[in-house]
Amino acid sequence: MSTDYEGFVVEPWRIREIGIAPDNFAQAESIFALANGHIGVRGNLDEGDPAGLPGTYLNSFFETRPLPYAEAGYGYPESGQTVVNVTNGKLIRLLVDDEPFDMRYGTIRHHERTLDLRTGVLTRDVLWESPARRIIRVRSKRLVSFTQRSILAIWYQVEAVDKPLRVVIQSEMVANEELPVTSADPRVAAALERPLVSEQHLAGVTRAQLIHSTRRSGLRMAAACDHELHGDHDYEPNTFIQPDWSRMTLGAHLDPGETLGLTKFVAYGWSSQRTLPALRDQVDGALSAVVNTGWDQLVAEQEGYVQEFWDGADVQVDGDETVQQAVRFGLWHVLQAGARAEGRAILAKGLTGPGYDGHAFWDTEQFVLPVLTATAPLAARDALTWRQSIIDLASERATTLKLHGAAFPWRTIRGQECSAYWPAGTAAFHINADISVAAARYVFWTQDEEFDRDVALQLLVETARLWTDLGYHGDDGKFHIDGVTGPDEYSAVVADNTYTNLMAALNFRYAADTAERWPQEALALGVMKREIATWRAADEAMAMPYDVERGVHQQDRGSTEREVWDFKGTANNKDYPLLLNYPYFDIYRKQVVKQADLMLAMHWCGDNFTLEDKAKAFAYYEAITVRDSSLSACTQAVIAAEVGHRELAHDYLTEAALMDLRDLEHNTGDGVHVASLAGAWLALVCGFGGMRDHGGKLSFAPALPKRLSRLAFAIRWRGCKVRVTVHPDHAVYELEDGVHGYTELSHYGEMFTLTTDEPVTRDITPVQPMTPRPTQPAGREPITSE
Amino acid sequence: MSTDYEGFVVEPWRIREIGIAPDNFAQAESIFALANGHIGVRGNLDEGDPAGLPGTYLNSFFETRPLPYAEAGYGYPESGQTVVNVTNGKLIRLLVDDEPFDMRYGTIRHHERTLDLRTGVLTRDVLWESPARRIIRVRSKRLVSFTQRSILAIWYQVEAVDKPLRVVIQSEMVANEELPVTSADPRVAAALERPLVSEQHLAGVTRAQLIHSTRRSGLRMAAACDHELHGDHDYEPNTFIQPDWSRMTLGAHLDPGETLGLTKFVAYGWSSQRTLPALRDQVDGALSAVVNTGWDQLVAEQEGYVQEFWDGADVQVDGDETVQQAVRFGLWHVLQAGARAEGRAILAKGLTGPGYDGHAFWDTEQFVLPVLTATAPLAARDALTWRQSIIDLASERATTLKLHGAAFPWRTIRGQECSAYWPAGTAAFHINADISVAAARYVFWTQDEEFDRDVALQLLVETARLWTDLGYHGDDGKFHIDGVTGPDEYSAVVADNTYTNLMAALNFRYAADTAERWPQEALALGVMKREIATWRAADEAMAMPYDVERGVHQQDRGSTEREVWDFKGTANNKDYPLLLNYPYFDIYRKQVVKQADLMLAMHWCGDNFTLEDKAKAFAYYEAITVRDSSLSACTQAVIAAEVGHRELAHDYLTEAALMDLRDLEHNTGDGVHVASLAGAWLALVCGFGGMRDHGGKLSFAPALPKRLSRLAFAIRWRGCKVRVTVHPDHAVYELEDGVHGYTELSHYGEMFTLTTDEPVTRDITPVQPMTPRPTQPAGREPITSE
Repeated sequence: MSTDYEGFVVEPWRIREIGIAPDNFAQAESIFALANGHIGVRGNLDEGDPAGLPGTYLNSFFETRPLPYAEAGYGYPESGQTVVNVTNGKLIRLLVDDEPFDMRYGTIRHHERTLDLRTGVLTRDVLWESPARRIIRVRSKRLVSFTQRSILAIWYQVEAVDKPLRVVIQSEMVANEELPVTSADPRVAAALERPLVSEQHLAGVTRAQLIHSTRRSGLRMAAACDHELHGDHDYEPNTFIQPDWSRMTLGAHLDPGETLGLTKFVAYGWSSQRTLPALRDQVDGALSAVVNTGWDQLVAEQEGYVQEFWDGADVQVDGDETVQQAVRFGLWHVLQAGARAEGRAILAKGLTGPGYDGHAFWDTEQFVLPVLTATAPLAARDALTWRQSIIDLASERATTLKLHGAAFPWRTIRGQECSAYWPAGTAAFHINADISVAAARYVFWTQDEEFDRDVALQLLVETARLWTDLGYHGDDGKFHIDGVTGPDEYSAVVADNTYTNLMAALNFRYAADTAERWPQEALALGVMKREIATWRAADEAMAMPYDVERGVHQQDRGSTEREVWDFKGTANNKDYPLLLNYPYFDIYRKQVVKQADLMLAMHWCGDNFTLEDKAKAFAYYEAITVRDSSLSACTQAVIAAEVGHRELAHDYLTEAALMDLRDLEHNTGDGVHVASLAGAWLALVCGFGGMRDHGGKLSFAPALPKRLSRLAFAIRWRGCKVRVTVHPDHAVYELEDGVHGYTELSHYGEMFTLTTDEPVTRDITPVQPMTPRPTQPAGREPITSE
Repeated sequence: MSTDYEGFVVEPWRIREIGIAPDNFAQAESIFALANGHIGVRGNLDEGDPAGLPGTYLNSFFETRPLPYAEAGYGYPESGQTVVNVTNGKLIRLLVDDEPFDMRYGTIRHHERTLDLRTGVLTRDVLWESPARRIIRVRSKRLVSFTQRSILAIWYQVEAVDKPLRVVIQSEMVANEELPVTSADPRVAAALERPLVSEQHLAGVTRAQLIHSTRRSGLRMAAACDHELHGDHDYEPNTFIQPDWSRMTLGAHLDPGETLGLTKFVAYGWSSQRTLPALRDQVDGALSAVVNTGWDQLVAEQEGYVQEFWDGADVQVDGDETVQQAVRFGLWHVLQAGARAEGRAILAKGLTGPGYDGHAFWDTEQFVLPVLTATAPLAARDALTWRQSIIDLASERATTLKLHGAAFPWRTIRGQECSAYWPAGTAAFHINADISVAAARYVFWTQDEEFDRDVALQLLVETARLWTDLGYHGDDGKFHIDGVTGPDEYSAVVADNTYTNLMAALNFRYAADTAERWPQEALALGVMKREIATWRAADEAMAMPYDVERGVHQQDRGSTEREVWDFKGTANNKDYPLLLNYPYFDIYRKQVVKQADLMLAMHWCGDNFTLEDKAKAFAYYEAITVRDSSLSACTQAVIAAEVGHRELAHDYLTEAALMDLRDLEHNTGDGVHVASLAGAWLALVCGFGGMRDHGGKLSFAPALPKRLSRLAFAIRWRGCKVRVTVHPDHAVYELEDGVHGYTELSHYGEMFTLTTDEPVTRDITPVQPMTPRPTQPAGREPITSE
């Protein structure tokens, strides 16, 4: 295989890989994974072999597996859910004379894959010399359609370059692909062997369909493909089918310059309820529709959809091409994870890999939805509507836990709790506030009254009820929440986690506000005035632990009084992540922070703190934060920017943005880190843009680091687009498409009215840092942005 | 089966069961289990069927099994150990005419089993009418020898009562017995199917031997039996053998009054190292020796051994026959668990059942060894020597946990950590102080210098090193130990657990003292003066959390500030034990105590508290202690007695003493609760006798509850026997066998010298309670002693 691997080229609108290298297969497959929130295909080579990890996924199509416990406990979930690698429809094998087209043999003269973020199409261009010294050019284009939700389409062409040759193209669908053994790392998903049971297989001349179901979860899926042939083909195609695979074969003798090719349309569908004939016809119908659309029109639709997204979402970063590319790449994957999920979860890895068993966590609500709310609000709405759709399961879970209201699962695909380690699962109750506050945020941003009444109200009420049970008014008059785990998983089962408390306070407040806005509907949920009063009382009395002696807010009650982790003794890179090298008991009892926790509270609940509070806390917690999570750098960037450490913020932004393009945590191969990629946007917009939405009011406090000469971004706010352009010494605000023609914003605390008539320009006086640049534990400094 | 089951009769020196009832099979099998610390046989019927749970155990003979984790973590043990039901050598089947002698058929005219605590022999007397209306009397006697460690012996006789009949006796050994499915309760041991693999089987006319090994743990065991025949037998015995069983058959035609019988000697041995021939010959040799001894002499030896024990251990309780019987029953099982363990563990269930997987825990050191130290010191020495023998494994475990010194396993058979739930396993580091302080206590009591130098020193030094790593000097100058779990498993992973801290302080102090007593040997362990100084500094600075506002000591830092459990909402008996009905997260974060924790500190480290401290704390913690553990009542009895609530102490004493005779926790069928039974002795001697050994000085503060007219007990103290007789208004102290002829004691804080020349009599002025009788959570009051 070619060794001159150049990796990913930095370009503003494309992810281009030059060369090909086995070590990077899995990473590149995740980077180049295509998805629309409903179906996802990893960026495997057309010909299937070799692969890092083959992967085709349908959102919420999973298999159940038992969760074993050597010592079980009350309320432990007994059954887990794992994403299933479904029928692979993208396989196109090629024979050149007698040789299979395989990157491991012959000579790769050129290999380039390009993901064009403006068209939503992945292209591949290969010049290959076979072991028998025949040179061919293979070009392929691939897309997962945003406009036709069940469709994957591939345009494929082989050309004889220098000599006449014989080519055979075999276009396949394969179920139950063999998968490599996964790592011993507990975070890597458990593999499932041959999860699909054949139910039916049908074939015509160019069309085939495979229908399967899972053994235990009882889900049924269908994959169907059809082909349009083009180029110079000598003999008629024929299709061969078996229960677990189909194969259409097409061949030709090509003279130099002649081509043989096809367009392959693949339709996917699944259901837990529909009959086999119903599902069969549904998928066949979708396939007929896309064949009728045709490749060119499908590509045009795709480009139109993507352009519309960028128009309201793009971020321009002048002065840092790396970040410029990375933030767009991040937004692309956020879009892919959520665009057409429509009533299903947005998963931690999107549909790009089997990492974390394919589960959804809190980071969807706290990192991904703020971005989608501001850039693709309908996707945010759908994701929150999915949460509402599983509220019955969340209520059942609460009942199991002897609590009122709803307790959403820490990790799940379908809605059932799948977390087998309760101190970092069940105890992380903050997910309930993350969800309900995300619903309130969506309402602030969109003024979507129907959603407010039909979705947000119920989410807020049932989670407020949970918090009422979880907390108590102590003898000090404060409302305390003990025994929970905050975002920082290196401090589990603590009392008064500041982030949890402040998010619960918002949960209470917004529940009360929303219930008062919709009194009839609230009454239907059993909400009386007295209950609202208890919510308001809890909100107002919420405890915020503070260390008077050190003059710093505590991540949780007493946190700053604990022994500090021996960072000098763990300066070796091999010591990290700590959770793989140290026992929980030791990690939990000492001051060491896995990921931003109090900083996250200072970002999303920032109006509870003064700038001085933030500056002091940032310096204190920087020294003990090891960033063993991909959900940390972006938040550190936001607070670093706020307290004036803009160069450090730039570094953290870079780290968040490059998480997957540089494979910083060495597990991008399992799928991209959707939340971290969303975090790059947050770092830019909330960090250098200083954007906040406390109390539903939109404010900005922009300031650039030295290397950036200009930052421009657009957000969708209450039916209009707000464009913000930040220069080193001033910012320009513009309004487009407003229903009302104006909106109220704030710049560094000063309110102003922005109209569609004219931009507003304001000077910038950047915050000056109150402390020296904070230091991190040895060896845990962020990568530099230089 | 006979329904007139009268259960266990209250008699001072015997446990006599009249009648037989299937529901009580498992409990009675545990009650009547015979053991000597090396081998143990459950009280199954001679004829095997029916049984609650067949059981024959060899101390430390176990099988390994994988410990599964749905979400694994660093340092989790991967392999567990489970006690194996070994070859059953006690089986004697009987045919009467054509009918098997089986309690489920025919009519039981009389059934009585008697465990005589003064002879150490279990007898059975049955009058049975067969379905064909033949009446027989079966009498059997069974013992597990204290003097011949590998021997089980059975005397068995059948007599024709009214009509002539044909009897056939089949004396068997059976390996891999079928066991019933165990409960879903996580505390009940995991069953292992057919764990023994046959290696050799040998038979003569009356003798047979079966040799097996385990599949995974690689242990080899041998069981051999021989028979002496007596009575009127018509035909010669013959023995049939197979890999997994042997059967000697003997028959006779009996006229009324005639008998047929045999004495069966069974020898057991096992090894992880010895070859098959070596083990075979060892067991055969032991068998030949006991055959030479003969039944009568073996019984005489047994009685002599037991009498010697009682002479230095018996407790007389005048005024409460129930407790009188129960405390002797408890001492009996303590003796059985430890007498001849000789270098192996004393297990939580002794060798009476498979509960807790047959593991040893901390309660051996903290509940059983204080009793053995005072009554059978050599057994205490052996148990502690076993701990030293696994110190290499404990050091390895500490290294895995990134700690210095030794970290003893929370639960184990052989020495490897087998706890799969770290918050109630690894985090319960107090076991290390429990062990090393028990070693120091043994030295105080025996003045065994050889043990002090060769065993105690190393145990103390390596555990002190562990504590040095586990704790830290805080900004307040105090030595804190965070993130550990104390005895109360309803409050896990807490800071400054008072019990843990005070035991660690003793660990430090005794390590320093012992190292200074043996400077050369300490130096060989690498102990320098500087290290000793750090131990003394930690001891002196040890934190003791106290709630100034409530004027009460805290079980752990902040414990009294937490939300109090909703005891009103859990008044239903079905709500308990809480750990089977509520999630850990909810239990941990609230004030609810599973078992005595601060009270345990107030018992064993009582010189750190004033009487007022104790009285206040006792009242406070009584109200939140639910006693979901068998390790609680005895300690509550001790402190209740100390603070003057003697009637309440009497109730708790009763509960501890009757744990198994009344099956109070409904799991005696898995084996008796050795520590709770030891606790009955502690409740009497440390409670109503007020005995303490703080700092190695022996003191008494006796006072009786109303119903007791006299309490008398003997203890072995520094080579002599101290006899204490407590009357309502005075106490009499006597000394026997003293090497020095005198000893220094204290009575209610007043020192006095006791000599072998004459008793000392002292008046008693009982402590008057400072609080009203404390109340317990609804439904969790102790059983009453009335």
